[in-house]
Parts: sequence; C-alpha cells; structure tokens
Amino acid sequence: MIYFRSDYSQGAHPEVLKALGDTNNEHTDGYGIDRHCENAAAIVRKLIKRSDAHVHFMIGGTNCNVTMIASALKPYETVIAARSGHAYFHETGAVEATGHRVTTAEACDGKLTPEGIEYAMSEFQDEHTPKPAMVYISQPTEIGTVYSKAELTAIRDKCKKYGLIFYIDGARLGAALTCGESDTTIEEIAKLCDAFYIGGTKCGALFGEALVILNDALNDHFRWMIKRQCGMLAKGRLIGVQFEALLGGDDPLLFRIAKQENETASLLRDGLSKLGVKFLGSSPTNQIFPILPDRVIKELEDDFFFYVWDKAGEGASAVRLVTGWGTTAEDVDAFLNRVKELI
Amino acid sequence: MIYFRSDYSQGAHPEVLKALGDTNNEHTDGYGIDRHCENAAAIVRKLIKRSDAHVHFMIGGTNCNVTMIASALKPYETVIAARSGHAYFHETGAVEATGHRVTTAEACDGKLTPEGIEYAMSEFQDEHTPKPAMVYISQPTEIGTVYSKAELTAIRDKCKKYGLIFYIDGARLGAALTCGESDTTIEEIAKLCDAFYIGGTKCGALFGEALVILNDALNDHFRWMIKRQCGMLAKGRLIGVQFEALLGGDDPLLFRIAKQENETASLLRDGLSKLGVKFLGSSPTNQIFPILPDRVIKELEDDFFFYVWDKAGEGASAVRLVTGWGTTAEDVDAFLNRVKELI
Amino acid sequence: MIYFRSDYSQGAHPEVLKALGDTNNEHTDGYGIDRHCENAAAIVRKLIKRSDAHVHFMIGGTNCNVTMIASALKPYETVIAARSGHAYFHETGAVEATGHRVTTAEACDGKLTPEGIEYAMSEFQDEHTPKPAMVYISQPTEIGTVYSKAELTAIRDKCKKYGLIFYIDGARLGAALTCGESDTTIEEIAKLCDAFYIGGTKCGALFGEALVILNDALNDHFRWMIKRQCGMLAKGRLIGVQFEALLGGDDPLLFRIAKQENETASLLRDGLSKLGVKFLGSSPTNQIFPILPDRVIKELEDDFFFYVWDKAGEGASAVRLVTGWGTTAEDVDAFLNRVKELI
Amino acid sequence: MIYFRSDYSQGAHPEVLKALGDTNNEHTDGYGIDRHCENAAAIVRKLIKRSDAHVHFMIGGTNCNVTMIASALKPYETVIAARSGHAYFHETGAVEATGHRVTTAEACDGKLTPEGIEYAMSEFQDEHTPKPAMVYISQPTEIGTVYSKAELTAIRDKCKKYGLIFYIDGARLGAALTCGESDTTIEEIAKLCDAFYIGGTKCGALFGEALVILNDALNDHFRWMIKRQCGMLAKGRLIGVQFEALLGGDDPLLFRIAKQENETASLLRDGLSKLGVKFLGSSPTNQIFPILPDRVIKELEDDFFFYVWDKAGEGASAVRLVTGWGTTAEDVDAFLNRVKELI
Repeated sequence: MIYFRSDYSQGAHPEVLKALGDTNNEHTDGYGIDRHCENAAAIVRKLIKRSDAHVHFMIGGTNCNVTMIASALKPYETVIAARSGHAYFHETGAVEATGHRVTTAEACDGKLTPEGIEYAMSEFQDEHTPKPAMVYISQPTEIGTVYSKAELTAIRDKCKKYGLIFYIDGARLGAALTCGESDTTIEEIAKLCDAFYIGGTKCGALFGEALVILNDALNDHFRWMIKRQCGMLAKGRLIGVQFEALLGGDDPLLFRIAKQENETASLLRDGLSKLGVKFLGSSPTNQIFPILPDRVIKELEDDFFFYVWDKAGEGASAVRLVTGWGTTAEDVDAFLNRVKELI
Repeated sequence: MIYFRSDYSQGAHPEVLKALGDTNNEHTDGYGIDRHCENAAAIVRKLIKRSDAHVHFMIGGTNCNVTMIASALKPYETVIAARSGHAYFHETGAVEATGHRVTTAEACDGKLTPEGIEYAMSEFQDEHTPKPAMVYISQPTEIGTVYSKAELTAIRDKCKKYGLIFYIDGARLGAALTCGESDTTIEEIAKLCDAFYIGGTKCGALFGEALVILNDALNDHFRWMIKRQCGMLAKGRLIGVQFEALLGGDDPLLFRIAKQENETASLLRDGLSKLGVKFLGSSPTNQIFPILPDRVIKELEDDFFFYVWDKAGEGASAVRLVTGWGTTAEDVDAFLNRVKELI
Repeated sequence: MIYFRSDYSQGAHPEVLKALGDTNNEHTDGYGIDRHCENAAAIVRKLIKRSDAHVHFMIGGTNCNVTMIASALKPYETVIAARSGHAYFHETGAVEATGHRVTTAEACDGKLTPEGIEYAMSEFQDEHTPKPAMVYISQPTEIGTVYSKAELTAIRDKCKKYGLIFYIDGARLGAALTCGESDTTIEEIAKLCDAFYIGGTKCGALFGEALVILNDALNDHFRWMIKRQCGMLAKGRLIGVQFEALLGGDDPLLFRIAKQENETASLLRDGLSKLGVKFLGSSPTNQIFPILPDRVIKELEDDFFFYVWDKAGEGASAVRLVTGWGTTAEDVDAFLNRVKELI
Repeated sequence: MIYFRSDYSQGAHPEVLKALGDTNNEHTDGYGIDRHCENAAAIVRKLIKRSDAHVHFMIGGTNCNVTMIASALKPYETVIAARSGHAYFHETGAVEATGHRVTTAEACDGKLTPEGIEYAMSEFQDEHTPKPAMVYISQPTEIGTVYSKAELTAIRDKCKKYGLIFYIDGARLGAALTCGESDTTIEEIAKLCDAFYIGGTKCGALFGEALVILNDALNDHFRWMIKRQCGMLAKGRLIGVQFEALLGGDDPLLFRIAKQENETASLLRDGLSKLGVKFLGSSPTNQIFPILPDRVIKELEDDFFFYVWDKAGEGASAVRLVTGWGTTAEDVDAFLNRVKELI
C-alpha cells in the first residue's frame, strides 16, 4: 500500500530522528526551559531577522491555534476565519470550547478575502454583537493554495483598518514558502502579521510547531496559557531539539523537505494533467485535489491510501493526494501508471 | 551537574527510542487509528485482564486529566480532589477552564481520605450548589506516598455511596505498583475505578500516557473530546509504539524501569537516613523529600539540580529528589558523599 | 416623541402590573418554588394540553436560550441556527461563552430551511468536526416572518432524521400564533418540538419568559443549570405572577395583547402600502420593515423613534417599526400622516 | 405562617412599587440606556462622591458577581474568596463556568482574613499554578457579620501588596452600613475597593443591583460582558426606576429599609438572648443564627418559616432568621412568645 494520505503518515525525517537520539541521554530541566529550546528560539529569531520575537514550542497545530486565540481575545471577542479554515472546520469546536466564536466568511479558492473580513465586520454593531478582534488564515490554505504577498498585505491592511490581530496558521508554512508560486519570504511573513507558526509535524518532525509572537502584548503570561490549555510538554526540549535540526544551518532542513514535498506533488500534478485529469482548486503545494471517476478511485484504493475529498459531479470525485518527506518518485510513478491503466 | 530534578529530565529509555526508530519509516494512518495503537491497546487490555476496556493514548498528564474530567462531568458537576492533587495544584486551572470546579479537601500524607470526600459532599445541598460527580486521586500521590488496597477500597466505597465516578491519575503508576509498600496489582486498580491512566512520560517514554476507561458510559464520543481538548496527535502512533515497547512481553519494561527508579530512590533514602536526615512524608516511591539545613542545600546546588520544596522550620527546608530511568548508583553515591561532607 | 422602537419600550400591561401589586405583600419562598409559579406552570400545561410538560420561568430571552442550549448539548456538540437567528446574531456570543458553536446556515425570508439543516450537517464528518445536536429557530423570526405548520413539520422531520433536538425561541410567540397567516396552534407547537418558550417581555410582561420542556431528558438537573447560568431570580414568583395574569382564563391576555400588536402593525403596513411604500421581507406580525427614502427617514426621526435597519439601495433604507401593547391607533395615524406629507 | 425565611420573601417596598407604577406607561429605549438609569447612576455617583464612577444596573447578585469576575480576570487568573463566600458556596459553580477558579481560604466568623489571602497567594508559584488576581468579599458576610474599617483596610493593603483587584459583594450592603457595629460609610467603601455593588433585591427592590466600578480599566466593554453573561434586561429602566426610588433624596429609602431590617432583627436577638438562647456567629445585621433545641425547632415550624442552618451539637441546631422590609414587631413578638412557651 502506497500512502498519499497525509504528510504525517511516517515518523520523523532521519536527520530529526538522529538529533533526538544524539541528545536523548542529556539531562535538562522540563517544560521548554532548556538550552535546546533556547537555541532553537534563537535560530528562529535569526531566520526571521527579528531579535525581539517571542518563540514558543507547541505540541501540535490545534493546540497552537487555540492557545494563541484564547490568549489574545477578551471574552466577548471573536476570530474571523474562512469557513474552510482549519480552526473552524477541523478542530471539533476547540476554539468555541474556550468561549469564543469563529466568525466565518466564505472562502475564495480556499482563501479568506478582504471582502470576507468586511462581511464579518458587518455583523458587528454594538454591545449586542460579539466583537471581531483577530483574523486567522492558513498559509498555505487547507486546499493547498497560497496567498500572494499582495493578498497578505491586503488582509494586513484590513486588520489595521479595524484594529484586528493578524494570525497565520503555518502548519505547512514550509510548503508555501518553497513552492513555485511563492513571492513571500519568512521575513516578510513575520513583518505582515502579529503571530504565526512554523509547522513541524507536517514537515519532518515527529510532532511540534514553533509559534512566533511578534506583538509583545500577545506574549503576556503566554506560558500560563500553554499550561492551562494542556499543551506544556514535560520533556519540552524534544520540540526544541527537533527545530534545531529543522531550522539550523545555512540551508535549513525544513525548507529542503518542504521543497521536495512540493516537487513530488508537482510530478503527480503534471503527470495527471498530461492524462487529462482536472483539479479542484489550484494548489501549487504538496496537497493536490485531482478529480477522478469514482470507478477509477475504487480501483486505486486497492493499492493506494488517500482521502476521497468531495463529490465533483456525475460519477466523479475529487481526491486529496498529499506528499510527505518520505514520498518517492517511485510512489508517484506507480500512481500515474495505475491511473493511466484505469482511465 | 547531576540531576535529581525530575523523572523527565532525559529523553526516552533506550528500548523505547529503539522502537520509535525501528518503526519510523512505516506509513500509517493518523490520529491514533493505526496498528501500533491497536496493538498497544490490546496489550493493556490483556495486562489488566479486561477485554472490554477502552484505551486511549494521550499526549500528556494534564491533557489526560482534563479531557477525562470534562468528558465525564455535566456542566453543573465538580470533581473532588485533595488540595495537593495535581489536577488542582499544578495545572494552572486547566480543569476550571472547562467550566468545572475542583472541590478540594485537605489531604493526609498527600492522600485524599474518605472523610475528605464526606467533607466535599457536605458542601453539596441543592440547585444552589454544584454537584460533586467524580473523585480524582493520584497513585502514587504528588509527594510519593501510596494508597493501600484498603484505602483505595474505602474511597471506592464512598464513590458507590454517592454515585461518584472514581478516576485515578497514574502519572507514576508504575512506581506505585512496584514499590515495597505496594499491596495492589494493576488488575485490582482496574477493578476499583472507572478510569485511570498509566503514565509513560515519567517512566521511560518520550511522552504519552495510556488512558484506560472501564466504564462504557465514560467512553461516549471520547475521541471528539480528545480533539476538542487539543490532544489528538497527528502522528498518533508514536504513543502506541512507545507503549508497545513499555508494556509488551512477559516482564514489561515500564515496570522494570519503575522498579529501578524506586530502588535508586531507596538507596538515597537509606543513605540519608543513616546520616540522620529526616523526611517530609513517607514516600516509598521514586520521589523523596529529605529535610536538610539551608546551608547544606546551598552547597549541594553547585553540583546537583533539584527542587527546594518547602520550608521545614529553623534554617532547614525539604528538598525533592526524584530518580529517573537514567539515574545511576554513582549519582546516588555522589550525592550521599557530598551530604556526608557537609552535614 | 412616538415610539415604534420596540415592543419593550413601556413597562407592563396594566393587568400584569395589577397582578404584581395585588400579590406584592404576600410572603412566599424564593427561587421560583412557590404557589404562583406552580399555578402558572399548571396553566401552561393546560394550555398546551401536555400534563407532562416541564415549565421553568426564566428572566429573559438570551438567558433562556443559553441555558437550554448549554444544558442540552454535550461539550462537543453544536446548535444549528440561521445566521440571522437571535442566538447567533444578537446575543454577543453568549452561546459560544458556554463552549458551543452555533453552526450557521443562510436564512430564507428570515427562516431556517431544511436545506440549511442539510448544509450544516454536511460540515459534520467525524471526530475532527463538532457534532450538530440541536436546531434553533425563532417563531416568528427576527424579521417578523412566520413558519407555517408545513415548514415547522419539515424542520421537525429533518431533526428526526438526524437525531437533533428541536428548540423554538418564542420571544414573540404570541404574535406568531395570532397573526393572520398563522396556521399553527400552541398545542401543535408543543407537539412539534422538544422545547420552546413563550415570551413575556415583548408581550405585556415587565420581564420573563416561560420555558416549556417537552422532552424529559432535557429537564435533568435543569434548575442547577438555571442557577449556574445566573438566571435564578430570588423573588422568582414575580415571573409566575405575571404568567398567571398573561395566560390564565379562557381568553388569555397574552394572546389578546399579541393580536392587538399585530393589528396595529397591520394598520401601519396597510397605510404605508397605500402610500406606495415597499417592504423588506413579508412580516405578518408586529415588526415591519418599510423601505423609505433617507431624507424622509431623517425628517421622521424628529417625531418618531425607531431603528434604521439596513441600507436598501440608492438613497433609501429599510426601517424597523414595532408595535407594543401600548401602541395606539393615534400613534399609527400620526406616523402615516407624516409620511404622507414627506413622501 | 410567619416568614423569617429570607429578605426576599415579599415583593417590592411600597414606595418602589409606586415608582414602577408611576413610570409604567412611559416609553424609553431598552437595555439600560434611558433617563431613569442615567438618573439613578447620577444619584449613586453623588452618594459616594465619585463623579468618575461607572454604574451598571444588574438583574441579580450572582449575575453581578460573575459578570464582574469574568470581565476582570484573564483566562489564567483566579479570584480569592472565603470558602463560605456566596460566589463560591451558593452559586452552583457559576464563576467556574466562565473558566476561572475560586481560590478558597477558610473564613473567620464568616470573614476572609489577610492571612487567608496570604494562604491563597502561597498556592501561586509560576506558570504551573493559576494566578490570583482579585479578592472577593461580602459585606456583610453570608452569616451577617460585618467587616470593620480596619479589616477592610487590611484587606485592601494585601490587595495593593499583590496587585489584586478588590471587589465587594454588597447584596445586603445597606444592612452593613446601617447596623450598630458599622464604622464605615459608603463613601469609604468606594474608596477602599475597585468595584462593589449595592444590593436592591434584599433591600426593598423587586429585583436588581447597582454595580459600581471605580477602576476605569475594569469598565472596558463591560456592557458587552453584561450581554454575553445573559444579564442585559430588555426593559433595563426597571432597575433604574427602582434605584431612583431607593437611593434618591436626602434620606434614601434603601438605608431606612436596611435600618428597620436590622432593628427588627435586634428585637429578635435581644428577646432570644433574654430567654438564654445562644447564637452561631456574632451578626449585628438582619440575619441571625440562634441555636435552639431540635424539638423546639420542630414545633416552631408549624407557625414560622425559616431555614435550619446547621447542626450545633447534641439535639440542637442553629436556625437562620432573616428580617425583611415587611417584617413587623408583631412577627417578632409572636416568635419570641412561642419560643418562651416551648423552651
């Protein structure tokens, strides 16, 4: 069985695993206060050229989103997101569990638009309506599309207009930054928003994300919030060690992995296109959504493991194919050959 | 620097790390639905001789406690705990964050007593008072003491009397089960309570705990609750793999580690006793609380890393010494020798 | 200044005020456990011909909605509502404050549709998505429109299909039941849903709503929830006394008030129509939304107090006119005459 | 049946009821934005000689406490209270429902002590423990005792020392200010704390409390919080009208009522003392706790309605007797005579 199920179907990239092994017998203090977390934080600050950034190592994406949102919002405030945004759509109401609404707007190619923010703001009137105070987007989006610098800037401008905090969910940030369509650097990301995270789980780590807070006000007692939201790892250094491995050096491993994930996905995309396959959305990253006849999908499922994403009209469906750090050219060829036979 | 700081100051026990390495390149589905988690759950069920038990692999102790409590209680219900209980004392209000009170009672040698439960119940009267619905204890306690089978049974009986759910925090359950004073087996634990967890983090794992639910009603939609409480790991199998390594086989590694942790602590305890040192509490497990002159503590801190726990009268304090899977007889000797010199 | 601002701009209907005065010096026990609340509950049960109904007297609409929703849902569950529904749109996130999402669907003429429920259900997949468990509608809606019996039945059928609780916000239920378009009796309402409330505040009471629970499971420990949600009035009998006055006798005052509110609104509607005025929506109840030129609105504001509701294209806006128990034919004439002069 | 059950067993004081009747037919805007609320707020500001105070009219005591606490605290913060404090003991976990712990300390004669605050602070260490940020006391306490100016000042000083907000629950504040032991004026109360409320429900109102916020930071978006916590009354002016009646003029009705309640209670207290009866606590206000033989209590219950409060040793119990605005000298005589016969 070949997996295009997700970018988290294997363990850690070998270099990350090696780092965990090399440091395994060291003793350090717990809860993310140790030399590895300190060093990894310094690496992040250097990478984004922001010596004033606060860096927290978080156990996972949902925990990262929820802790950031619950920490930043006052009780009567809400976060604006695309209805397809992960924090709304795939986190089982974890944001609302902390007492806050996710004010939704329809997405366009997976992206929240400035008009969507205007729409959300139009629901806000006075003390009878909760007050939007933050904008949440995912870069890349949940369907693999990427905000351009101009789009990010337009959202940032709306945030400034309305006094909204701008937060970017970067579960697959590496993929966004290294794809062909990318016109934004990580430094620019850090300039545009108030907080974002660099996803490790989907880019070579066993688990863990690096949350970067650029706005001092958002960092107040943040470690209290991490603990309260159940995200403080006893052996906190584990995430620091992994991010040292992922982001250290001149040519950070995380971006090399992301680039390779994108390239393998491109091979798939190009191969399928040549076979006449159409796609849902226009993802340039490591998730693609080809539309295939249902009978083909049924046959493919014998040898390949992937999600059937959505109905796509008469006898066809979009499937989601995701490439990970361990996806090989052979995996891609096997899939393309089988589609060729079936189509 | 020699660490008696905690039992989570190093990475994983080498056998656990090896298991993670051996399975690293496997592809599996995410979120704890995979062959390793299934196998580890089967191992747990066999260990406790309960084929009907539900087993969930959780990322950490606080998350485990909070998810179990929030899932089991109705909005107007509370959980009874010793004021020194971890879920009350050292989790930054994470239980209350889910809308529930921790109704506290004073502990005796770290343990909740049947009288404490009666006291907590006495606060409950009618619709003007929240209703206790669960009892939370830690086995061993936060100061290393161990409930006897008779004590556990007495608590269980109070739970039956008042219709309370009985939940045991087993962050260091291995230490309780393998210490000299232990008169309870894990099978008996599983018979006495409605749910408990077997701690991995403090007994050889990188991270992760095995939550065991014995009462079907408590398992309803539990995976929804794991996700909502931000504890669903993408690469969920990581915890399954670790518990296969920790609990598999005829002489499970977890108990061997726990036993060794207890023995190293005993060496410390006996050595200190011989030097005339007194202790706070009567812990037979891997956390001990010797009382030392403050000037001795100050000197010790140059070479050893540990917590100063509490004032203990005129010029003396109790310190906490914890042994982990990697604590050696040499570490113990070094400490004892230094105390001898200083005292 | 003549008020068409709301149906809560005056105090209580004189008969309700008299009842409060007549019983003022009586001593009773507090918190809604008294002969007046008991009697009012019996009156409600008789009115709906359901001797098994549970009746709770609540301080206000938001409190009523939130307590019912928070009591009925498990932590991972959501309530489906029209985006224009009061519990979503005008309650400052009070539902989310209890940890639950309001899953929204677009409304049609103010009404939630069976398709809207299907849409909301389509967001629900598995443990990564919160589970809709209740449908919330307002009868009449927030823009005065009324669900027909067929529409209510269609929603009820969807609820049955998906195992959803059906809850009706009846803040202005009297207006819905007594308007010209009504084809549903209060008995039928009680048969169709699991819980609903009969609004007092907007129909002659000083304050207070009668919540009717038809589904025993929803009533479990409900008084604990009333207290926890801060809605248990010390002098609880005040609401009972008012509902005795509003619903007692063969021709209950509440319905007489509602009918009169509807009739006064009809006079306004017909008068404005004759003057060529168009309306937003098709409300047959005591809230109407005429579209007037902005310059006319500006002039009217000197003598009349009302909400400007929404932009309605080039130089015009919809305003909201609401009639209350004290609105007179003279008030209506004055408005119509002024519009005639200005238009 | 003669009631000593509570000070909320009757409706409103006749002067309050008259004010409601006199203004009943007026039209005003809703939600507490009207001339009566404005005027009542001005009256309060003048009374406490603080032109900068923010005044909000709240529907009840629990709602007032919870809204103030939830508004003032950050998610990881707690409020310190005596374990017998109303917000902890008799509000069904309503504070915890908003995600905050009530950190409790044992009371002394019903009062929180500076040592109690120190005890609560001692639980706070670092990011693993929730942070106390507010002190809650009731003046008078739940057992009728009254803090002296020195005691209030000592608590205020502890608050300053630790940066804690000081909030006073004044459900029966009138009784505290007008009792024989009182050495504090309402002006001084307003100087000592950050926020307090003047209770109406238990001192002549139908319902309603006047919350006074002296610290600007605590008032930010407070009306959003009132709505979110379900306490925004549609006919908000009802509370304003009542407080105009209660606090207007040179000799405010509320204090006259409170004084009379205290005096009637004194008659009871003195009469019982003469009969040799002992008391639980030392209340100088309108709640007293005589200890009577259980067989006497049983007989008294035929003619009088009151709470049996607590066991008081061999065959005796403390009962709670409360006087209200309508309690008469005849009621007192009847009780004393009956006790005399029975004892």
